[in-house]
Amino acid sequence: MNGLLEHLRAGLPPEALITDPDVTASYAHDMASFCDAGTPAVVVLPRTVEQVQHVMRTATALRVPVVPQGARTGLSGAANASDGCIVLSLVKMDRILEISPVDRIAVVEPGVINAVLSRAVDEHGLYYPPDPSSWEMCTIGGNIGTASGGLCCVKYGVTAEYVLGLEVVLADGRLLTTGRRTAKGVAGYDLTRLFVGSEGSLGIVVKAVLALKPRPPRQLVLAAEFPRAATACDAICRIMERGHTPSLLELMDRTTVQAVNRMAGMGLPDTTEALLLAAFDTPDPSADLAAVAELCTAAGATEVVPAEDAAESEMLLQARRMSLTALETVKSATMIDDVCVPRSKLGAMLEGTAAVAEKYGLTIGVCAHAGDGNTHPVVCFDHTDADESRRARESFDEIMALGLELGGTITGEHGVGVLKKEWLARELGEVSVELHRGIKQAFDPLGLLNPGKVF
Amino acid sequence: MNGLLEHLRAGLPPEALITDPDVTASYAHDMASFCDAGTPAVVVLPRTVEQVQHVMRTATALRVPVVPQGARTGLSGAANASDGCIVLSLVKMDRILEISPVDRIAVVEPGVINAVLSRAVDEHGLYYPPDPSSWEMCTIGGNIGTASGGLCCVKYGVTAEYVLGLEVVLADGRLLTTGRRTAKGVAGYDLTRLFVGSEGSLGIVVKAVLALKPRPPRQLVLAAEFPRAATACDAICRIMERGHTPSLLELMDRTTVQAVNRMAGMGLPDTTEALLLAAFDTPDPSADLAAVAELCTAAGATEVVPAEDAAESEMLLQARRMSLTALETVKSATMIDDVCVPRSKLGAMLEGTAAVAEKYGLTIGVCAHAGDGNTHPVVCFDHTDADESRRARESFDEIMALGLELGGTITGEHGVGVLKKEWLARELGEVSVELHRGIKQAFDPLGLLNPGKVF
Repeated sequence: MNGLLEHLRAGLPPEALITDPDVTASYAHDMASFCDAGTPAVVVLPRTVEQVQHVMRTATALRVPVVPQGARTGLSGAANASDGCIVLSLVKMDRILEISPVDRIAVVEPGVINAVLSRAVDEHGLYYPPDPSSWEMCTIGGNIGTASGGLCCVKYGVTAEYVLGLEVVLADGRLLTTGRRTAKGVAGYDLTRLFVGSEGSLGIVVKAVLALKPRPPRQLVLAAEFPRAATACDAICRIMERGHTPSLLELMDRTTVQAVNRMAGMGLPDTTEALLLAAFDTPDPSADLAAVAELCTAAGATEVVPAEDAAESEMLLQARRMSLTALETVKSATMIDDVCVPRSKLGAMLEGTAAVAEKYGLTIGVCAHAGDGNTHPVVCFDHTDADESRRARESFDEIMALGLELGGTITGEHGVGVLKKEWLARELGEVSVELHRGIKQAFDPLGLLNPGKVF
Repeated sequence: MNGLLEHLRAGLPPEALITDPDVTASYAHDMASFCDAGTPAVVVLPRTVEQVQHVMRTATALRVPVVPQGARTGLSGAANASDGCIVLSLVKMDRILEISPVDRIAVVEPGVINAVLSRAVDEHGLYYPPDPSSWEMCTIGGNIGTASGGLCCVKYGVTAEYVLGLEVVLADGRLLTTGRRTAKGVAGYDLTRLFVGSEGSLGIVVKAVLALKPRPPRQLVLAAEFPRAATACDAICRIMERGHTPSLLELMDRTTVQAVNRMAGMGLPDTTEALLLAAFDTPDPSADLAAVAELCTAAGATEVVPAEDAAESEMLLQARRMSLTALETVKSATMIDDVCVPRSKLGAMLEGTAAVAEKYGLTIGVCAHAGDGNTHPVVCFDHTDADESRRARESFDEIMALGLELGGTITGEHGVGVLKKEWLARELGEVSVELHRGIKQAFDPLGLLNPGKVF
């Protein structure tokens, strides 16, 4: 332990090291409940690539595990410390190095906060789409590590589609450059994409070249109330089948709407079983909004209300973004699922989730990136009640099983971390897990990077 | 050798095996000139996944290399046979298994021809964007193996962005499933993307889940004539900087225009130094087309002519698509470069290429997916003239060096194959190549899959 600190100090300024156990303890967890976390030996906050390389060389020399962290807003425990590890927090490497409107790229350090980047590129008439609900806090490095999604994905795709190239410090401290700053490129294997979503298990991202889009017009939102979740899902299928390209297509169930109203007094319609939000960000969205309104009514919507203006649209988005936080107030604890199914199975997924809630006698609120088939069933429970906690865990698992049965995945955007490790093997199968191990071995032969996570 | 055929025959119907040397020889090459090719021991044309598994089990048992092939329209020699290999042609596995307008996916076998899929999904109001110029011949499996681009990429991206999931037969015959049929998913490493562009070196793709888009309106094309390539590049930079989203943005230089006119009597303006084609496929492209016309004129275009209708637009696209073929008729042989640079460096790239042509006293025609910065300088030479051939090879290399200097890549979409193998290491660097080897080792420990290609 002393040896570790001595080694680290040799290449780091004093302010880059935190050793006070009260402070280091605060770096032990991300935002996932009920995931084990260990006690870090030290927290390091580097400001340069060389400092990160020094940390990794030290870790390799002394065989100390390293847990990379961004803003720790993750929901799967992927950033949780392990005992005796170096927590490597990248939050101080937070410079936007370049924004190019001609090349439509930004070059950033990993600690840049998503919203900070979004606003900076907006000033150049550009748009960085990935928008996890935590966008005001989460970092680009964390977004890359977990391959984050968000509300925009139904039109603009996920983080992975915006990462063109990376600089990565490997487990042994060597620097790797992947990808490119060009629009296209197929030279060699796609190592860039391999790092995206690898949850810090293959290397430490220290720089990223990100693709940008032109800034679209402000989106206009429409809200539709449905008497049943299944009919809302019908509407979603028809909207997509007819070739519409909404900039968001979201669903909040009654439990979620009520929780948001309670938390923020939003005045959302809280007697509806399912509230559907659809938006378009085209120059003239009126035809699309009218067609979507008609499809919603035909599917059984009891009310269809277009937002009057951008402010009202923004309010509806805020409501959707705070859904998970609001559901956390329903009971003392929550477990947040992240099952993504083929869009055509969304109705079956929601009905199945309701059946699970009934079977276990629990409240399970659901909000969903419905256009993508990505549901977040939130199991609400009293963590001081052992039996309820057990039922929560079982229902959480049963929802993942249901997702797999419907041809879906256990994680649409939150990642595996420690929370879904056991389930990953079930989804991937043995052959895939063996190849995962082979790749891990090629990148991190000593197994020092975020050990015990993902698989 | 007899042992090999005997083994293969045990699990394949007679018509799936070709052993006649006159016929097998015709499978030795793809469309790249001047790449070495060996003599295959046998050509296998499986129709089922099980048959592919049998081939790979046999190859592993007998340590025989396997060269997977689609339609052999590749331009880098990646599908060239090696001596004594099994050529594994996937062209008979050509079924479209599913098209889902609600889920916006297609599930296909690897031998489906790109244009066949495009027309099939079009009937459902859907769109499969990737459109390499060879789209009437090339297969989806080949597109996946080489991560193909095309004209649409400036708006719709490359093949990689449309591959959601794969079934792959590994070197030892085991079947691997990667990815998903959902819109999102982050379970484990992105093995899907690792296979895309791996040029058959990691496994045999036997099924693919592809993402589809809603069919856009027909695009309208505008043609602009420029007195210098550099001013055309200025126009391109301004178009992208102003936030336009053309569905194609292409460039043909004078040599290319003249070659196309000679070949097809297209009547393109052949006194212009650079012909720029821009298109939009939005419901009402008039405002974008007018703005682009204005930007072209401001940048120095001497003529700006919008296509009168869809037919004239299609004619211009045809002209662009036949550019490489037309340039092949300029001299007895060609070497086709595929350098992609940041869009902002496109002018420098074209000027540098002209300087190379002058230095070596050669004709180098250039067509380019200009909006993406992806240039195809085509070195035209007489292959019976040893000195000219040497100069061609040197200028081909110098163009790649220039691309790397400008922050670009040696291959935007054609891949590495054998043609650019030496250059790949130069672009990637040692650390990356070592990781490539580690990955290869994890997937194909005996080195049987397409040996001698890529790296």
